[in-house]
Amino acid sequence: MGNIDKLQCMECFRPFSEKRELYTCQFCGSNISLDVWYNYQELKKTFTREWLSKNNNFTHWRYFPILPIKSLKSVSMLSVGWTPLYDAGSLAKKMGIRKIFIKDDGLNPTGSLKDRASSIAVARALEDGVKKITCASTGNAASSLAGLSASVGLEAFIFVPESAPAAKVTQLKIFGANVFLVKGSYEDAFNLSMMCVDEFKWYNRNSGINPYLIEGKKTVALEIAEQMNFKLPDWVFVAVGDGCTIAGVWKGFVDFLKLGFIKKIPKIVGVQAKGASPIYQAWHKKRQLTPMKPETMADSIAVGTPRSWKKAIRAVDETNGFFITVTDKEILGAMKLLGSTCGIFGEPAGVTGLAGLIKAVKNRMIPRSSSSLIIVTGNGLKDISSAQKVSGNIFKIPVDFSALKKEIKHLNI
Amino acid sequence: MGNIDKLQCMECFRPFSEKRELYTCQFCGSNISLDVWYNYQELKKTFTREWLSKNNNFTHWRYFPILPIKSLKSVSMLSVGWTPLYDAGSLAKKMGIRKIFIKDDGLNPTGSLKDRASSIAVARALEDGVKKITCASTGNAASSLAGLSASVGLEAFIFVPESAPAAKVTQLKIFGANVFLVKGSYEDAFNLSMMCVDEFKWYNRNSGINPYLIEGKKTVALEIAEQMNFKLPDWVFVAVGDGCTIAGVWKGFVDFLKLGFIKKIPKIVGVQAKGASPIYQAWHKKRQLTPMKPETMADSIAVGTPRSWKKAIRAVDETNGFFITVTDKEILGAMKLLGSTCGIFGEPAGVTGLAGLIKAVKNRMIPRSSSSLIIVTGNGLKDISSAQKVSGNIFKIPVDFSALKKEIKHLNI
Repeated sequence: MGNIDKLQCMECFRPFSEKRELYTCQFCGSNISLDVWYNYQELKKTFTREWLSKNNNFTHWRYFPILPIKSLKSVSMLSVGWTPLYDAGSLAKKMGIRKIFIKDDGLNPTGSLKDRASSIAVARALEDGVKKITCASTGNAASSLAGLSASVGLEAFIFVPESAPAAKVTQLKIFGANVFLVKGSYEDAFNLSMMCVDEFKWYNRNSGINPYLIEGKKTVALEIAEQMNFKLPDWVFVAVGDGCTIAGVWKGFVDFLKLGFIKKIPKIVGVQAKGASPIYQAWHKKRQLTPMKPETMADSIAVGTPRSWKKAIRAVDETNGFFITVTDKEILGAMKLLGSTCGIFGEPAGVTGLAGLIKAVKNRMIPRSSSSLIIVTGNGLKDISSAQKVSGNIFKIPVDFSALKKEIKHLNI
Repeated sequence: MGNIDKLQCMECFRPFSEKRELYTCQFCGSNISLDVWYNYQELKKTFTREWLSKNNNFTHWRYFPILPIKSLKSVSMLSVGWTPLYDAGSLAKKMGIRKIFIKDDGLNPTGSLKDRASSIAVARALEDGVKKITCASTGNAASSLAGLSASVGLEAFIFVPESAPAAKVTQLKIFGANVFLVKGSYEDAFNLSMMCVDEFKWYNRNSGINPYLIEGKKTVALEIAEQMNFKLPDWVFVAVGDGCTIAGVWKGFVDFLKLGFIKKIPKIVGVQAKGASPIYQAWHKKRQLTPMKPETMADSIAVGTPRSWKKAIRAVDETNGFFITVTDKEILGAMKLLGSTCGIFGEPAGVTGLAGLIKAVKNRMIPRSSSSLIIVTGNGLKDISSAQKVSGNIFKIPVDFSALKKEIKHLNI
């Protein structure tokens, strides 16, 4: 494929040539997806900052030279990526820190960062001549794959745990996907999906195993770098469930480092929900993973047996970051803070990065004088049931102005 | 203000100089908001297509020379406008028409076209030195104003009929607005909000009366023109509730016509839900409005006593368009069709334009050889309760691969 140099195992470092359905290491037997590396030296000649500055494609396809697809002919029309990046002064002030930047990936076509990965998956499926595609998902990857598949005419088969929020399942229906609600966990849904890949040769859009999906997710980091004019913040806070997104963030920065676009990678902080924190635990305890039964309202990161945990830990360790956990209450607090200071509504997992930043500042794990960026990974409209728990100034009133006036005076507003 | 020439009554044509809180005609007593006209001849010298092509502001503020604000200093950081415009080949093919374009305004920061108007309102409030702002809304304008207000530090007072969907009210809480759930209709909420404007001098973000809000809404038309390289479709289909959005679409095209950017305005079609179609009725019957009790699932256009009905009729009449009504069932059908062919999920009112196009094609009101554009005015995630009524392929399965295999074979997929 175009500019790909090799696939490589992150554990035994064995290189492989690219070929269809080669996802994990055939040599050491690692179950971690292979890394995808490009011909950076060759690319440097033409893929430059200047070339980028003249690029009028304002979607994540602007990074085509370092994406694992053959051409732009088979990509979806949907406008994936190039989501807004904000310098949130009022939030920084409220938190008493110098700088906070927000990358709002809830404004992707189906409302989450997952569109970056799904758009790569459907493009590769089409390039491979495959007509059917599958994934397991706690929700966002599912609705994302369903939407992207609909947009290019692929048939999608989606496995979701039956606990998935109604809004996400409704999206699947609207997008015309075949949906299997599994009476079990995310892991059960994942296993069934994988068995179908083997049995029916459906294209496999499971981020934990298909190496090309992280290549999609990495574009969020490429955009952060470019939108900040390659002057990166000190810290980047990322919510962590399976570990693929944080791995993608790291990979994007590494690609730009190898290309000479940036000189240094920000310190990456992985934020897990306390009730679903196996990677946090593994990072603290001898790097061994102990699966757990996930219990958090942040459904998008409610993963008890993460596939990409080693990649998540690499992202943190290689950048001198750290892992941190936050409670559901802290997540809700972050949601309200983000909404009321910035007008941005993130889903629980979408604001978990901010919850981590708040805690890290409070616990003096990062200095107030540093600059941080949070990635809002999903739109709050995807899961209003959690948000409904946030308190608000809601007043039921009759159609009576004098009663209303009294109420307003009483409120002292 | 900058390039504004005059405000003008659309009924008696009396011109007025701009001044704060002059919203409707002081001369003939019309209750229709004044039109805002700019110094087009002067503007033409500098505000050109070439100037636009070099403009790197990819939000709706790129049209600053024809927006009613003093400077860009007080605008929200939120990325309003410049939403994607798609050439939806698969949908056109499925419908058997030549061309259909989709402008997806559900990807605005709070998920609807209303952000265009709210962003103008909060900027003007700040320029006027007002700290509090109010509106009445069936939902989208409310969540939009709440989000935009939060982003600039204004205090918002929102009046919603108690029938507003949960997702929209939840957004209000997250954005920290003061919310009054009125035990009555949209009109009751509107009247209470207006009384508060008089009593407390809050800034008035009611589209039906504040002339500057239509100036915000018009940017959707400006973007359509520019994104299509000024080669416009034959028809533009717009859902109509109060009438402000369709009035904004017309106004945007008129501005570009006056500036010489386009030669002709597309024919504008107003689509109303059958259960809330007073403007359709008025257009058919001697141009007299008879209020009705609105009954439709498309809450964003469930308006029985529209304020801007005359502007809506002007938009249609001046462009040789027409009005059409669609049933809730047709709206749901359009929702599923849009989702399953394009991967775009619109709320009921958001897909009402498409429902109108489908019906117009079926009834031979427009030729299959023509090109049409629909504006998706709001994100489907805002109201999943309606979408849940759409049928889908949902299968509950146990964690058992052999049972699953049988099911899949049985499905013949």
